[in-house]
Amino acid sequence: MSNASPASEPLRGVQWKGGLEDGSLVLLDQTRLPAEVLHREITAIEPLRQAILDLAVRGAPAIGIAGAYGLVLHLVPLAREQAGANSITLEPALEHAFQRLVTSRPTAVNLRWALERMRECFHRHIGHLTALEMCARLLMEAKRIHREDAELCQRIAENGAALLPSVGGIYTHCNTGALATGGVGTALGCIVEAFRSGKQLEAFAGETRPLLQGARLTAAELRSNGVPVTLVTDSMAALLMRQGRVQAVIVGADRITANGDAANKIGTYSLAVLARHHAIPFYVAAPYSTFDLTLKSGDAIEIEQRNGDEIRKPQGAVFAPADMPVYNPAFDVTPAELITAIITERGVITKPTVAAVAKLMG
Amino acid sequence: MSNASPASEPLRGVQWKGGLEDGSLVLLDQTRLPAEVLHREITAIEPLRQAILDLAVRGAPAIGIAGAYGLVLHLVPLAREQAGANSITLEPALEHAFQRLVTSRPTAVNLRWALERMRECFHRHIGHLTALEMCARLLMEAKRIHREDAELCQRIAENGAALLPSVGGIYTHCNTGALATGGVGTALGCIVEAFRSGKQLEAFAGETRPLLQGARLTAAELRSNGVPVTLVTDSMAALLMRQGRVQAVIVGADRITANGDAANKIGTYSLAVLARHHAIPFYVAAPYSTFDLTLKSGDAIEIEQRNGDEIRKPQGAVFAPADMPVYNPAFDVTPAELITAIITERGVITKPTVAAVAKLMG
Repeated sequence: MSNASPASEPLRGVQWKGGLEDGSLVLLDQTRLPAEVLHREITAIEPLRQAILDLAVRGAPAIGIAGAYGLVLHLVPLAREQAGANSITLEPALEHAFQRLVTSRPTAVNLRWALERMRECFHRHIGHLTALEMCARLLMEAKRIHREDAELCQRIAENGAALLPSVGGIYTHCNTGALATGGVGTALGCIVEAFRSGKQLEAFAGETRPLLQGARLTAAELRSNGVPVTLVTDSMAALLMRQGRVQAVIVGADRITANGDAANKIGTYSLAVLARHHAIPFYVAAPYSTFDLTLKSGDAIEIEQRNGDEIRKPQGAVFAPADMPVYNPAFDVTPAELITAIITERGVITKPTVAAVAKLMG
Repeated sequence: MSNASPASEPLRGVQWKGGLEDGSLVLLDQTRLPAEVLHREITAIEPLRQAILDLAVRGAPAIGIAGAYGLVLHLVPLAREQAGANSITLEPALEHAFQRLVTSRPTAVNLRWALERMRECFHRHIGHLTALEMCARLLMEAKRIHREDAELCQRIAENGAALLPSVGGIYTHCNTGALATGGVGTALGCIVEAFRSGKQLEAFAGETRPLLQGARLTAAELRSNGVPVTLVTDSMAALLMRQGRVQAVIVGADRITANGDAANKIGTYSLAVLARHHAIPFYVAAPYSTFDLTLKSGDAIEIEQRNGDEIRKPQGAVFAPADMPVYNPAFDVTPAELITAIITERGVITKPTVAAVAKLMG
């Protein structure tokens, strides 16, 4: 780990450092923010798996990018040992790394998508590359996934910015910015892009209990982009809406099903219900890769339970007795009927339905 | 301050210790729970004012009781100096203490109610009592306010218990139990009474950010009464409702206006909207003294803003940078149309309206 002062330079969640044989994955340890800016330098899959489990790296796109680099990190040492061998010798190792990484966050469809794209790349070239050449090809693919994410973030941001009002308050939840993606972010990117384009917006960041991504990351990230921002607890969103201070809610998504239901950080569904009650538009901004058409609806999404100490002892503080029973779902599912529009890099789905989703995906 | 281990004996928020001339007010310092059970022994109004501002003592009824004892504490030393004098000499001191205490929590109508009752008692006896006799009379009145609160809590609990389902999950917010009142509590008392009467209930306690009364107090208090309880973050209530795990929501109130609008801890309004969306009954349990008929509706209630560090640095943990702008309203107002019934010691107001409130109050 390296320590750096929280400077004014933009924070980056995921970076590849060095070349092929001396390369490493540098992750900003987001569990330590805002108190300190610490990086984890990752050179193997088990520490990467732990970083995903710890939420040191988070945000579906960023996890996918990290996973792609992770496969490379696992294969390079093996390839160096048998540099001239055909790449087929790497296949068992590839499968092992694939399984270790894909199981670290079962809900994150981007992770599976990125790992599968890497595996397809492997199989496409398996006949005619040596092991080390294959690693070079896979690193190129991982970097391409990374660069494509930056480009699609920008397109999502532009599509979303167009939907936001010219003046008013925008409420967001969790963190969907540069720390969560390979680019400017999704929902947060839409707010920043709208602000840059001259819209007179202020943002409200919900703190996002239990892990406080809104308080620790989003508020600071919006402020570093010049957007006026106010931090609130999640329980205050309804009051802000009733006071007329919120003109739109915009959030990200971890997974979107064939009918437009969206799984996202716990508390998202609550905001969608509150927005509907107050007749406020509720937008979901997420890349194409977030869609999982194998799932008919959100009912099919398994919601993982996380460690109860995230509720009882956040950031080391004692909020509740150590043996207090808690319920700590990582995600909830917002039904499509509560979503005004889904914003993707390919366009906007207004009033999402099975047909509308299929049309965009087709 | 005295330190005691968190034993299994029931915690009491407000107690009078000793007699008239050596008496003191013992407050359980609720800001230190659940980590430690510390008491503040109060013998003057300025430390009491600070305890109210700090939320060391909290809950509208408990604050009212504490305020009543506080007047006595302020007058006794003055009365001892001029033991034989007529009680009229105490009047300026009474007014001073009244003003210092009533301004410590402007939203708490119980505090004003209790202080006004003490002042009326003072004026009723001013002609024929010495200063020290007056203090004895006022201490009797304060103890009567305390005892009456214990009795009315029991009646509220019985009235509320009858409304709760025979089987199911009950969601509550903030703390409205023995720590907040002079008796078994209001909303929490209803749950405990229903459970004791044989209903097969489980409770969900919302942690109640920013000050975490649900996590620090309510969950433990329910458990100490044998009620199966699960602690959740405030953002999880909607998901529990959607899952069909919540059959009723019951909360307290700090102030209720003539039309049945209820001011209560921030986050209450959010729960009322969510309950309505899921067709779940939403109950408010509060004593008669919570009604303020001088206010036509909740629009007339001034919502105080609290220190932003409650959001940024709860329990000493760093959730956000120290200079991050926050919005920290202490309360919100739930409009009467979202309230299924208001439960008081005098009876239940179903579908509260101006007429229904007036009938109960009449």
